[in-house]
Amino acid sequence: MTDTMLAIGDLERIVEAIMRKAGLSPLHAGALTRVIVAGERDACKSHGVYRVEGCLRTIKAGKVVPDAEPTLARDESAIVRVDAKGGFANAAFELGAPVLVEKARQLGLAALVINNCTHFSALWPEIEALTAHDLAAMAMCPSYASVAPAGGSGPLLGTNPFAFGWPRPDGDPYVFDFATSVAARGEIELYRRAGKPLPEGWAIDRNGAPTTDPEAALDGAMLPFGAHKGSAISTMIELLAGVMIGDLTSPEALDALGTTTLAPAHGELILAFDPARFAEGRAGDPIVRAETLFEAMLGQGARLPSQRRFAARAKARSEGIRLGADEMAMLEHLREKGLDAV
Amino acid sequence: MTDTMLAIGDLERIVEAIMRKAGLSPLHAGALTRVIVAGERDACKSHGVYRVEGCLRTIKAGKVVPDAEPTLARDESAIVRVDAKGGFANAAFELGAPVLVEKARQLGLAALVINNCTHFSALWPEIEALTAHDLAAMAMCPSYASVAPAGGSGPLLGTNPFAFGWPRPDGDPYVFDFATSVAARGEIELYRRAGKPLPEGWAIDRNGAPTTDPEAALDGAMLPFGAHKGSAISTMIELLAGVMIGDLTSPEALDALGTTTLAPAHGELILAFDPARFAEGRAGDPIVRAETLFEAMLGQGARLPSQRRFAARAKARSEGIRLGADEMAMLEHLREKGLDAV
Repeated sequence: MTDTMLAIGDLERIVEAIMRKAGLSPLHAGALTRVIVAGERDACKSHGVYRVEGCLRTIKAGKVVPDAEPTLARDESAIVRVDAKGGFANAAFELGAPVLVEKARQLGLAALVINNCTHFSALWPEIEALTAHDLAAMAMCPSYASVAPAGGSGPLLGTNPFAFGWPRPDGDPYVFDFATSVAARGEIELYRRAGKPLPEGWAIDRNGAPTTDPEAALDGAMLPFGAHKGSAISTMIELLAGVMIGDLTSPEALDALGTTTLAPAHGELILAFDPARFAEGRAGDPIVRAETLFEAMLGQGARLPSQRRFAARAKARSEGIRLGADEMAMLEHLREKGLDAV
Repeated sequence: MTDTMLAIGDLERIVEAIMRKAGLSPLHAGALTRVIVAGERDACKSHGVYRVEGCLRTIKAGKVVPDAEPTLARDESAIVRVDAKGGFANAAFELGAPVLVEKARQLGLAALVINNCTHFSALWPEIEALTAHDLAAMAMCPSYASVAPAGGSGPLLGTNPFAFGWPRPDGDPYVFDFATSVAARGEIELYRRAGKPLPEGWAIDRNGAPTTDPEAALDGAMLPFGAHKGSAISTMIELLAGVMIGDLTSPEALDALGTTTLAPAHGELILAFDPARFAEGRAGDPIVRAETLFEAMLGQGARLPSQRRFAARAKARSEGIRLGADEMAMLEHLREKGLDAV
């Protein structure tokens, strides 16, 4: 049982073939493949090929429209809307992103609303698609009720990821993307699969008592990061990226889905800021000034978020992506059996 | 030594007289008085009358322009700009807020940038001024270098407050407003004045070692809330509300001020969202749907942020504001001596 090294393009071809066999239209198969392989490439295992199986389960359960054609609506406002028509969010984002970029340049600040999507990937691929256009970006979405609010006793909030990015002149942007729970649900899933106990403070069981058992945690509730502060930010995400955009909150998404084992359907909110417009008439180039801040952080031994991810990316680009024998077998199984494998 | 009960209007007259005697123009004296008395009224002691003295110290040190006339600039973009001209932020916000409200209604989303201000009050009075117009709002600003980034060893980030609000149909809005440090600098100041040790995990000393001594903490660095996640959010605030708007970051503000005992000068960023515009064409009234979420939180025993503050406000409105003999003596001293008292 040895590891396999795959070129990025080769892994893309494998994953895309699985997605096509599972019934996804070329539009969705391509968009999903790009984010899943990007996750694996960046050694972000909880968003890598491990996700393929869950994606197929969601398709098989009929909880996502595999050939949805997202539609875009715009007006004179700062809001760009994409209706994903029940499909995966990634293709909807790819449709809306160029218009969001255009609006942000025109108005300085703009929002992309994605409705009726099934979301299961990380937010950083979207953030990086915007920082590549010299914009700062913020993204957030609900998930499904699995996190107790601070002081609460059961699942209500989602793991509600919050992501932000800032363009850097040379190479990789400043990007963070994290769950507003102490840990992402995917991380707890990995502990469960590995049969390992969770760190303390990650979760409560169904009776509201602290637990380190991944099964009990998945059956109970996760806890927000940073106590009441993280809980407040998670609530803000329910309000802005659920209620405000007329899409499902995390408790509503769970009710609609009926399970926590499939990818949830809801909406997403992405804000784009044009630093050149915001800094107009002020001294100093914001892109240059930000570097001073980053250098000061690195200078005192702090790491920038995503540094490890970018290092893995550079390595994957030169050496390829390393997959274990079990992962290769899983992919081969999914490629052969399609939806019958899940 | 007994407590004094003051009607809200009476405390406003006392504080405003102090501010006028200290040389503030009526515009600034009025705006500052409103936020300081609002803090005291809401039992938010670290932003109440305790702040008057620091305000006078900042004036006396010549670090704020006491009669600055803020100016407003707008164009076709989503950005409204107010140049505070070196004055306190509060009057600048009051000038910009109506235009921000108008822009948010017009475009769905808009930003108010305040430059060249001295900021020392809480952000929730600004948030509540926007939720009162049925808008959601987000506000943030740097402060001065006093917080170590996660993994770092010394002060670099500010306590960088982050605030958000959502309008509620009856009575008080959903509002949170917190420092992205574990504790606000004002809270550490209160421990210092009371001669009490800090809770564990709030700060490091000047050598980067954990400390519970308020003096050593003020001489060293505070820690961000939620480890690397809070540190990332604090960094985002430096970037968006410092670098991007062409104003000072927290390390720059400290360099410019030369001390941590006066109110810092920098900028501020406030975003306003019109839920009615964002929800257009979607099922359900967002204001009504948000109540379902709040009821579910309260139903499982969680508190909403600011609930305690609103309870104190209701009490202050019916019974008045209670001040201790030491606080009354301090106010009397400041009213009598003006800038000579600090």
